[in-house]
Amino acid sequence: MKALVYQGPGKKALRDRPTPEIVDPSDAIVRMTRTTICGTDLHILKGDVPTCEPGRILGHEGVGIVEKTGAAVTAFKKGDRVLISCISACGKCEYCRKGMYSHCTTGGWILGNKIDGTQAEFVRIPHADTSLYPIPAGSDEEALVMLSDILPTGFECGVLNGKVKPGDTVAIVGSGPIGLAALLTAQFYSPAEIIMIDLDNNRLEVAKRFGATATINSADGKAAETVMKMTGGHGVDTAIEAVGVPATFLICQDIVGAGGTIANVGVHGIKVDLHLERLWSQNISITTRLVDTVTTPMLLKTVQSKKIDPKLLITHRFKLANIIEAYETFTDAAKTHALKVIIEA
Amino acid sequence: MKALVYQGPGKKALRDRPTPEIVDPSDAIVRMTRTTICGTDLHILKGDVPTCEPGRILGHEGVGIVEKTGAAVTAFKKGDRVLISCISACGKCEYCRKGMYSHCTTGGWILGNKIDGTQAEFVRIPHADTSLYPIPAGSDEEALVMLSDILPTGFECGVLNGKVKPGDTVAIVGSGPIGLAALLTAQFYSPAEIIMIDLDNNRLEVAKRFGATATINSADGKAAETVMKMTGGHGVDTAIEAVGVPATFLICQDIVGAGGTIANVGVHGIKVDLHLERLWSQNISITTRLVDTVTTPMLLKTVQSKKIDPKLLITHRFKLANIIEAYETFTDAAKTHALKVIIEA
Amino acid sequence: MKALVYQGPGKKALRDRPTPEIVDPSDAIVRMTRTTICGTDLHILKGDVPTCEPGRILGHEGVGIVEKTGAAVTAFKKGDRVLISCISACGKCEYCRKGMYSHCTTGGWILGNKIDGTQAEFVRIPHADTSLYPIPAGSDEEALVMLSDILPTGFECGVLNGKVKPGDTVAIVGSGPIGLAALLTAQFYSPAEIIMIDLDNNRLEVAKRFGATATINSADGKAAETVMKMTGGHGVDTAIEAVGVPATFLICQDIVGAGGTIANVGVHGIKVDLHLERLWSQNISITTRLVDTVTTPMLLKTVQSKKIDPKLLITHRFKLANIIEAYETFTDAAKTHALKVIIEA
Amino acid sequence: MKALVYQGPGKKALRDRPTPEIVDPSDAIVRMTRTTICGTDLHILKGDVPTCEPGRILGHEGVGIVEKTGAAVTAFKKGDRVLISCISACGKCEYCRKGMYSHCTTGGWILGNKIDGTQAEFVRIPHADTSLYPIPAGSDEEALVMLSDILPTGFECGVLNGKVKPGDTVAIVGSGPIGLAALLTAQFYSPAEIIMIDLDNNRLEVAKRFGATATINSADGKAAETVMKMTGGHGVDTAIEAVGVPATFLICQDIVGAGGTIANVGVHGIKVDLHLERLWSQNISITTRLVDTVTTPMLLKTVQSKKIDPKLLITHRFKLANIIEAYETFTDAAKTHALKVIIEA
Repeated sequence: MKALVYQGPGKKALRDRPTPEIVDPSDAIVRMTRTTICGTDLHILKGDVPTCEPGRILGHEGVGIVEKTGAAVTAFKKGDRVLISCISACGKCEYCRKGMYSHCTTGGWILGNKIDGTQAEFVRIPHADTSLYPIPAGSDEEALVMLSDILPTGFECGVLNGKVKPGDTVAIVGSGPIGLAALLTAQFYSPAEIIMIDLDNNRLEVAKRFGATATINSADGKAAETVMKMTGGHGVDTAIEAVGVPATFLICQDIVGAGGTIANVGVHGIKVDLHLERLWSQNISITTRLVDTVTTPMLLKTVQSKKIDPKLLITHRFKLANIIEAYETFTDAAKTHALKVIIEA
Repeated sequence: MKALVYQGPGKKALRDRPTPEIVDPSDAIVRMTRTTICGTDLHILKGDVPTCEPGRILGHEGVGIVEKTGAAVTAFKKGDRVLISCISACGKCEYCRKGMYSHCTTGGWILGNKIDGTQAEFVRIPHADTSLYPIPAGSDEEALVMLSDILPTGFECGVLNGKVKPGDTVAIVGSGPIGLAALLTAQFYSPAEIIMIDLDNNRLEVAKRFGATATINSADGKAAETVMKMTGGHGVDTAIEAVGVPATFLICQDIVGAGGTIANVGVHGIKVDLHLERLWSQNISITTRLVDTVTTPMLLKTVQSKKIDPKLLITHRFKLANIIEAYETFTDAAKTHALKVIIEA
Repeated sequence: MKALVYQGPGKKALRDRPTPEIVDPSDAIVRMTRTTICGTDLHILKGDVPTCEPGRILGHEGVGIVEKTGAAVTAFKKGDRVLISCISACGKCEYCRKGMYSHCTTGGWILGNKIDGTQAEFVRIPHADTSLYPIPAGSDEEALVMLSDILPTGFECGVLNGKVKPGDTVAIVGSGPIGLAALLTAQFYSPAEIIMIDLDNNRLEVAKRFGATATINSADGKAAETVMKMTGGHGVDTAIEAVGVPATFLICQDIVGAGGTIANVGVHGIKVDLHLERLWSQNISITTRLVDTVTTPMLLKTVQSKKIDPKLLITHRFKLANIIEAYETFTDAAKTHALKVIIEA
Repeated sequence: MKALVYQGPGKKALRDRPTPEIVDPSDAIVRMTRTTICGTDLHILKGDVPTCEPGRILGHEGVGIVEKTGAAVTAFKKGDRVLISCISACGKCEYCRKGMYSHCTTGGWILGNKIDGTQAEFVRIPHADTSLYPIPAGSDEEALVMLSDILPTGFECGVLNGKVKPGDTVAIVGSGPIGLAALLTAQFYSPAEIIMIDLDNNRLEVAKRFGATATINSADGKAAETVMKMTGGHGVDTAIEAVGVPATFLICQDIVGAGGTIANVGVHGIKVDLHLERLWSQNISITTRLVDTVTTPMLLKTVQSKKIDPKLLITHRFKLANIIEAYETFTDAAKTHALKVIIEA
């Protein structure tokens, strides 16, 4: 089969690889119909993710059709249309029982990282019963690709951890795909204001279309100051960090109001300064989270009932044969205005 | 009246000062029967608290008897025995209505800071109806002095923010009065293990007597390593920071398990490093809080029903006339083994 | 001044009454600009509310302008435009501190019940600082009349107690003003389905316009059966009872799914059957609540930010001089299609 | 093997039955070392549980040693010492993912009900990975038999649902084994008062030894009145119903304070009256629950750390050969003072 293979820092190629086989009785083999590219895939290609070794098939998102199931799989059978979660969950370990699938002792984020992933014609999914979701009849499958990772990430790490509530003022620092996913799902809770902050005016315009009530280009270094003015000096109830660098985490510290929450979504490569000398008395919470995808069933319902339109995030479409071009488009987002790109089988 | 007056960094003196008068209709004048000294008072004396100006009467804790009340006070009358909260709360502002008395727009921590405090024969208490608590008949008033600040601080900032639950493993970094207050109140929730960490063996022995299941002297720099061994590499559910310096906050980051909480109680003078490069994916929460004293009524019930004995924290007793000596004893805790000192009128 | 006076069961009249005066230092006198009529006022007129004695001025909703304030009032002054909460709260008692204003020991629902109310030219508001809310400049004051009682009631007793969440299935039994207020505010949380149940087709049509995803006329006695079919036999996540009779509470018991909640909003005159012989094992919650109006500040923000349009509930307008006609229109809702009627000064 | 077989209402017998075999790949066969008898077993024998048909081996509690495992079992192997949960959970279905194992679509309470149970030499456990718990080395296995059902039931249905908090006043109506299990586990949260109510003075004396702060014999019909006096007319924060008849549920309604919770634990055979005509405005919650046993890992930790001693509940011990005598002792508890009886293999 064709598969996009990581070949060490800076290198990837579409290669022929053997079709995966059932290894464990809880496995399923899924024929991919659509996948996508994640910012994390770019991190891997930069060499930032040591758990992902050269030779690995990339990708941890997508939808497909069950091709084969192991003897212990009871929830799915050949021919079922399924959504693949980016997080594999055994459903049995201490962490899975707490709903913390991200830390499953034999799962977590392993697809396209520690085991071969979804940017291929077929993929082996361990713990299939608890890592795949049935696609409801009549669904727009393309839209559901957004439920593998980006929407649950924005929602769980940003919105739920950020405790967004009706009437709140929310700021989202970073208007890339993840920040926009947080923006879309924050609206489930009817905050009064959602302020989007970014350096890219195109992304800020997208944010406006997606429901931001205000946008700030932070290029002038005055984003925090502007937010404080907008909020009468109170700061925001929730600051969502959706970039992953010290400067954006600092903005969050500068704008979070007393009693507020900083919900970190960004993947950080280095430590940040935490200004406890002024925050110790501010009754704030800071949260971190690797997405658990425990909200996937709920998100499926919100898509079915049209409370959210995940297709808004899709800007480009490619065939698997052209996945290298898809990567280029996704990487060069400043120029191409790409958010999420769909790769069709 | 006699009062302990702050006279600029490093200086304090017992002085004669006019007895306070009702200024606002919601004020009460309280005749102090017992007060105590807080670590924060030592911070002020070091010049670390710019809101506290020379000439200020220090102290924000204590019990006493109502001497006079303003026209708007309805809950108290002359002769009532009262517990003074270290936090003044108007009960009306946006923050008070949310139970965040610490950020009351006309209150908060003002006693012995922005207005004259309790280390005196009399004190003026603003917002008396919502900043004083009636002392139940038959109470041990000395014990209740611990409810002005130290017990609610340990409980709200450490235990409640730290979400301590039955069966949990808790580590408390710092075994001074605040850490011990967290230790005492953590036991309300029956955690399986409470590990106390400090540099002072005496304090660690006190911790054992107060219910710690393990103690670690961190002098060798291996406290985090030891905790990780004790917890089978999982780390703790809750790490309570009760010191306020970068090194102890770092220990908390090194021992918090996936899904756990770091509850900061310490007053920090400088920023700390936050290792988001490894914590971003660990599903943790970090909380900060200036005590709100919203749990004072609950704590009073636990004292009345003997679920906790706050007197355990009291090591020394002085008369107000000897308060300078009391400060010396409290400051030199390493030698005197002082925890909390009572100053009687 | 003119005032609508309760004169015993079945009797009311517009009378001349003395303008109220400040009685307590925490009082304010408010000149009413707009009030409305509540279903509870009809209960009083039926003689169902023994705490309300003949001679009482009715009404517990409205907006107006502060005319006078007592010496202890600090948050308001003459000329301030204010929203009157149906619940008076001292802000000091055990219940107020817990956010349970409905059970304030010197307040609660007293307006137009135990003391004179708002269907008059002026009203005395006790505990003014914590029972009035400033009207933001530029607000549509008519819309805000809905925030005195009906919106917080639908929201707190129905939606918050009912724990409505994104993706949920909600049924609201009763499509009168209160049920519709629950319908409007339930949408803050993006449930997937909101099923409205009533006997009146007009009200069900209104419900459709207000956002119901399905409506059921329960006249045929098969409402519960229909809901169970709609939900694939699972039942609903939240059933909101907004009528107050045994038959509608029974429907809620018949449709609540395992793990779900029945949130009672209706005012019940007699006991109901609770079918614990089948519900004991269903992991459900049943909640009751007299509105606390603790969410008024939040609701004000959602109105300001146009997340909700309370004016949808207003169907008729009258002058105070014609309040008897307003009562007739409101009482005869089946014919007049009245929801909420505005009474202007 | 020997097994206690239900033979229709009123009839049971110790019989020879074939040793169970693996049926499904997720099954385990466990050799029982200790089991016990539950009040529910008596319900079955009265013919009250139609899902349990004659021929069924009774029992849903116990500890044992894994004898055989199906191909899909990964967490256990032959020789492992295990605690059997009374609730079988697949870990995969919608309910299991929500932690509502009691409603598992292929599990729930099936042992000794819909499939053969534990009062035998061997038992087949479906969904073994998520329905068995490893027994920590060095544990007192007899004590752990209490963790199969009675302790999680008292804790989850009574204490957790009842939201018991430090300083609270709790009343438990019913001082049988389940009420006593609620009493023991309520103390995890340090309530100020726990009032036990029963008709049997012996059980009330046991309650005193187990930590009740007050006991009331309700034979005179004045239990509610007495509780209201004890609480200064306020009523209790939490009323736990641990009997399952209308009279005891009525006591709970009569003593629950404004803002309080009635947590139903009792198994009810008939409907009860719910006095909404006075409770509609009291801001109360009523909860029901079939135990989910999701807290078993937590309870294991509290037993290991000696926060609770489940052996307190064990009053008698029998060999399996004498199980009929064990039933007689357990049934005749008023005379034998039996709480829980251990049946050893």
